[in-house]
Amino acid sequence: MHKQMIPGIIGGMGPEATIDLMYRIYNNTPATEDGDHLRILIDNNAKVPSRIKAIIEGTGESPAPCLISMAQGLVQQGADFLVIPCNTAHYYFDQVSASVDVPVVNLLEITAQTLKNNNMVKVGILGSTALSIVGLYNPVFEKFGLTPVYPEELYQDKLMELIKAVKAKNITQEHLSHLSDLLQHMEARGIDCFAIVCTELSVIRNKILPNVKTFDALEILTDEIIKRSMNNN
Amino acid sequence: MHKQMIPGIIGGMGPEATIDLMYRIYNNTPATEDGDHLRILIDNNAKVPSRIKAIIEGTGESPAPCLISMAQGLVQQGADFLVIPCNTAHYYFDQVSASVDVPVVNLLEITAQTLKNNNMVKVGILGSTALSIVGLYNPVFEKFGLTPVYPEELYQDKLMELIKAVKAKNITQEHLSHLSDLLQHMEARGIDCFAIVCTELSVIRNKILPNVKTFDALEILTDEIIKRSMNNN
Repeated sequence: MHKQMIPGIIGGMGPEATIDLMYRIYNNTPATEDGDHLRILIDNNAKVPSRIKAIIEGTGESPAPCLISMAQGLVQQGADFLVIPCNTAHYYFDQVSASVDVPVVNLLEITAQTLKNNNMVKVGILGSTALSIVGLYNPVFEKFGLTPVYPEELYQDKLMELIKAVKAKNITQEHLSHLSDLLQHMEARGIDCFAIVCTELSVIRNKILPNVKTFDALEILTDEIIKRSMNNN
Repeated sequence: MHKQMIPGIIGGMGPEATIDLMYRIYNNTPATEDGDHLRILIDNNAKVPSRIKAIIEGTGESPAPCLISMAQGLVQQGADFLVIPCNTAHYYFDQVSASVDVPVVNLLEITAQTLKNNNMVKVGILGSTALSIVGLYNPVFEKFGLTPVYPEELYQDKLMELIKAVKAKNITQEHLSHLSDLLQHMEARGIDCFAIVCTELSVIRNKILPNVKTFDALEILTDEIIKRSMNNN
């Protein structure tokens, strides 16, 4: 038996999304007893400084030093590669990646690659307001010939309220009704698919019911983690 | 704000039980945004050598060195105290505890203490066969004046099949029917309550429906982790 490659999860953004990722990995790993499952190291750090405050409001401290310290701790503990189950936190990807000598999976890159492989072009972006303001996916979308379609401001504001409601475990029927309006409105703009690029929205994936194909970045990350862990080259 | 005490979870026994524990901690922590939740370090190591093979069959390697290495890695990464969400693995508790200079929560001790606090005396034990063969709970039950009542061999065998089925994600109606027979049979022996002392059985807690009060060691551990994390004395 090959030694398994050990993933280290720079988690906690939010904490439920990290647990959701762990369940997805667990459920998608072929196994009949404990030993068939993967060893995974997780720093589920709900105390990472707010990405929203730092990026949008410009008032909070940078999360980068905290993310770097988590990355280095996981590598020291034995992680062979790292992942960050938070799209918005990829704003700090280069800094984190430069701080360790193991590969860090770029969630933006593998998501765009998957969209490209599935012949998508116009992609409706379901993500945080911070992600949309800084156009975090734009460079990688350009690289793969994809066109991002962002919700108009009013809809994006409602989407951000939903994301905060997921974090507060406080989703109402009104949130879901706004979400449904947003999906219809974006579909009318002629998109090929939606991309769920906020792990809080991944957590409520079964409540997001559009009429077009939908890709979930957290699902793409799940597949990547299992593949990399089992391929010990 | 007090610095939070960081728990380190020596996990993976089994991997689903560890994820279940993480969800319980998440759901029981009062929070309206990410930062209200706890930072938790987890080594979800499904590759820990089998406790069953080592303790019962006497054929497998000891899990102790692996558990000690996990414990030390978590402390190095910043854990202020450690927990082991597996009752049977407490067979190696003293060795793990002696290997680090932070407290390790003794799940057997806090479970027995909780039973005592609730004025229980005769306690039906729902645990692994390894745990029952070595009488793992006997010393701590004696200390607190509790009487353990173990299932008769035939029932214990069926219970162990259920535990393995949980690990294999392969529970059938027949497993649940045997479980129901076991619960009735043990209730007829005049017990005051059941204690779920196998984290795989904790995972299927909502399928265990006895007529007497039931205490779940994983729930007791959840409360203990939240309490210790927030009390920074």
